[in-house]
Amino acid sequence: AAACRRLVAAPWFNAASFIVIVLNALTMGLETYRGVVSSGGPAFHALEYVFLACFSVELLVRFAAHLPRGGGFFRDGWNLFDLAIVLAPLVPGVRENVTILRLLRLARIVRAFRLFPSLRVILVGIRRSLPGLGSFLLITLLVLYGYAMVGWMVFGEAQPERYGTVGQAMLTLFLLLSLDGITDTLQAGREVTEWGILYYLSYMIAASYLLTNLLVGVVLNALQE
Amino acid sequence: AAACRRLVAAPWFNAASFIVIVLNALTMGLETYRGVVSSGGPAFHALEYVFLACFSVELLVRFAAHLPRGGGFFRDGWNLFDLAIVLAPLVPGVRENVTILRLLRLARIVRAFRLFPSLRVILVGIRRSLPGLGSFLLITLLVLYGYAMVGWMVFGEAQPERYGTVGQAMLTLFLLLSLDGITDTLQAGREVTEWGILYYLSYMIAASYLLTNLLVGVVLNALQE
Amino acid sequence: AAACRRLVAAPWFNAASFIVIVLNALTMGLETYRGVVSSGGPAFHALEYVFLACFSVELLVRFAAHLPRGGGFFRDGWNLFDLAIVLAPLVPGVRENVTILRLLRLARIVRAFRLFPSLRVILVGIRRSLPGLGSFLLITLLVLYGYAMVGWMVFGEAQPERYGTVGQAMLTLFLLLSLDGITDTLQAGREVTEWGILYYLSYMIAASYLLTNLLVGVVLNALQE
Amino acid sequence: AAACRRLVAAPWFNAASFIVIVLNALTMGLETYRGVVSSGGPAFHALEYVFLACFSVELLVRFAAHLPRGGGFFRDGWNLFDLAIVLAPLVPGVRENVTILRLLRLARIVRAFRLFPSLRVILVGIRRSLPGLGSFLLITLLVLYGYAMVGWMVFGEAQPERYGTVGQAMLTLFLLLSLDGITDTLQAGREVTEWGILYYLSYMIAASYLLTNLLVGVVLNALQE
Ligand code: NA
Ligand code: NA
Repeated sequence: AAACRRLVAAPWFNAASFIVIVLNALTMGLETYRGVVSSGGPAFHALEYVFLACFSVELLVRFAAHLPRGGGFFRDGWNLFDLAIVLAPLVPGVRENVTILRLLRLARIVRAFRLFPSLRVILVGIRRSLPGLGSFLLITLLVLYGYAMVGWMVFGEAQPERYGTVGQAMLTLFLLLSLDGITDTLQAGREVTEWGILYYLSYMIAASYLLTNLLVGVVLNALQE
Repeated sequence: AAACRRLVAAPWFNAASFIVIVLNALTMGLETYRGVVSSGGPAFHALEYVFLACFSVELLVRFAAHLPRGGGFFRDGWNLFDLAIVLAPLVPGVRENVTILRLLRLARIVRAFRLFPSLRVILVGIRRSLPGLGSFLLITLLVLYGYAMVGWMVFGEAQPERYGTVGQAMLTLFLLLSLDGITDTLQAGREVTEWGILYYLSYMIAASYLLTNLLVGVVLNALQE
Repeated sequence: AAACRRLVAAPWFNAASFIVIVLNALTMGLETYRGVVSSGGPAFHALEYVFLACFSVELLVRFAAHLPRGGGFFRDGWNLFDLAIVLAPLVPGVRENVTILRLLRLARIVRAFRLFPSLRVILVGIRRSLPGLGSFLLITLLVLYGYAMVGWMVFGEAQPERYGTVGQAMLTLFLLLSLDGITDTLQAGREVTEWGILYYLSYMIAASYLLTNLLVGVVLNALQE
Repeated sequence: AAACRRLVAAPWFNAASFIVIVLNALTMGLETYRGVVSSGGPAFHALEYVFLACFSVELLVRFAAHLPRGGGFFRDGWNLFDLAIVLAPLVPGVRENVTILRLLRLARIVRAFRLFPSLRVILVGIRRSLPGLGSFLLITLLVLYGYAMVGWMVFGEAQPERYGTVGQAMLTLFLLLSLDGITDTLQAGREVTEWGILYYLSYMIAASYLLTNLLVGVVLNALQE
């Protein structure tokens, strides 16, 4: 147990785990190339077992590091995450579902955040800035919803593919934030009613003002920390 | 009156009002789905009366909280807004106009800003930053107007759908800020005259510089508060 | 002269001049609408004389304010600008050229910057921030030029409409900054050579990094003032 | 040697070198115009020799400035860069390769960074800010890779031109950051599966949040220096 504790604390242990994750990710990437798979199929199968073994060993070492009392092991969310990734493929029902198995293998990449200290710091920073942005996102949602309801009332009949339902209208207005095809959308709106210009111009200005303020909010939050 | 005052001050009173608003908004959203309306039409009618009752009760409670002297009630803009939303549908002329009735129901969403303290803070911040941005918006308008007049002189004959009138030209130049279809617009401009490149390039650079400064203005305003 | 000096210093004098400019701008805008001109042609002619009279009177008052020694009048760039706008239409050669006459009338809008103090402040700020941005713009120009030369070497033969000359290539790359049609351009580049991806990806990343730094430069310059 | 040292330290020496670089760049730019080359071919050849002579002389002067002990000359990366540019065209193998010769001539533009002190400062600032951005770029890469793998699993069969391999999928998602054609891409995704909306919306929000944070990171890095 003490040897395992020293092992886990060693910097090269984390580095080796990180390299295994990167190699695993690259292998999964290679598997998406048809030619590579057809020529090296068995090798990929073997590699998958190697990676699985590496992750299991790492998990065992981490568990052993918490012995004699293993309770601390289960208190860290990352350990539970690792355990779930390694054990889930053994569960019946999951074992047969190719999509879920693939997603579980993909989830191993997320482990990189555990191993890289600077990534963890950023993750903590992002998590802390999220609630502060909540109010602005709520306003944005309200503005989007209000414009979507008005858009449904004005354009719902004439442009059902854009404003047929409030969900469709919200999607249209959200995509309009990307400014992609705004000229065409505005033109189509003007053909329905000349008020369409007022609708779209006011939306563009309100939305860009809100998004600018969101950006400022992020900057200020980051500055204060 | 005292009981009402305590009621209005209680945090759960605002929370309940907020939840009613959200439920009302969701109901209105559901009504935009054709299938839902045809199957549950009477239920929506009933729900509308329930929401109307909730808003009326809330309004009465707020009014009662200001008794015995009701003058304070009418001094708060939000109360007048609530009163208008509840009473307007009873006015003849309005009662028959489906569009206005719908807009009045939609206006209830705006009440969310009253009930959420952090939203009110943001609203105050936005209102305060608006005058400071006035000068920059005036410059932007002047630049837009000047380019629109020049554009009408240069391209008005050849591209009436883009620069036929100064209003049309301003809309074209405003949409150009979205960078949507800039390649096509520039190409069409070059076919009219080779000076078109100079016109568009100088506009793009001047506009992006002004918009960047507007953004900086917003950031600085926010920093100083 | 003393009376004129008091007049020029009075706030309502500037305000009145500003209103004349706005009215003049609106009149010029109205003239771009064909129907308005055909129905009210003589009225526009009369209005033009009224505006010309207003500007002349304003100029005379400002000149008188500098009497008995008129030298100070000519030391202010704005006065020279006003003088040029009023006198230029009288010069032969200019008098017959409709385009130049129109541009001179349009140039009156620029006078708004003189009359609005906050606009002047912004103008001064913009002028001061320009040299500081020079180095970054020089780098951007160098990057643009370098990529344009490489683009001409690689794509010049296959895509003459995009990279036929270095000027054409610089325009193509500048427009690419707008991200308009990037997918098509990249696709066309890949058809010429697979190295096209490397070319465009490296350009996109380098350009966005430089533009971000330009933005930061503007922000920092503004912060320090 | 002492005279050379004074020469190198003189401000006009750097200025002259800079002007030679600009003239050389302009000449290379002119050569991309077909008409110019056919009419003035020999002149360009002569000019090329003049520029080569200028660079050689500059290099010799700099070398002489480091005499009697020339070791210091080779310790400055810029000197090695200059030497490589001047000597490489003499190496056999290189001498015959027109593309490499052109790139070597183009590389002379990079020398501008050496001669302009403010450009060097910016270059140092950029180099210093790069490692700090590493973590964020790593996260962005992880997010891009994760979404690319999921995209390949979901859309790989139906849209091989977008998600056929993980490399293709990463390119598609990177280009989506430009918001170019997002409406079409989303529409195509919805035709494969309704989950496509969730995929693209979550990607857009995650990506824009990460890019905003990257921007903030750059700003903060610049502020602290
Ligand atoms: Na676009
Ligand atoms: Na775009």
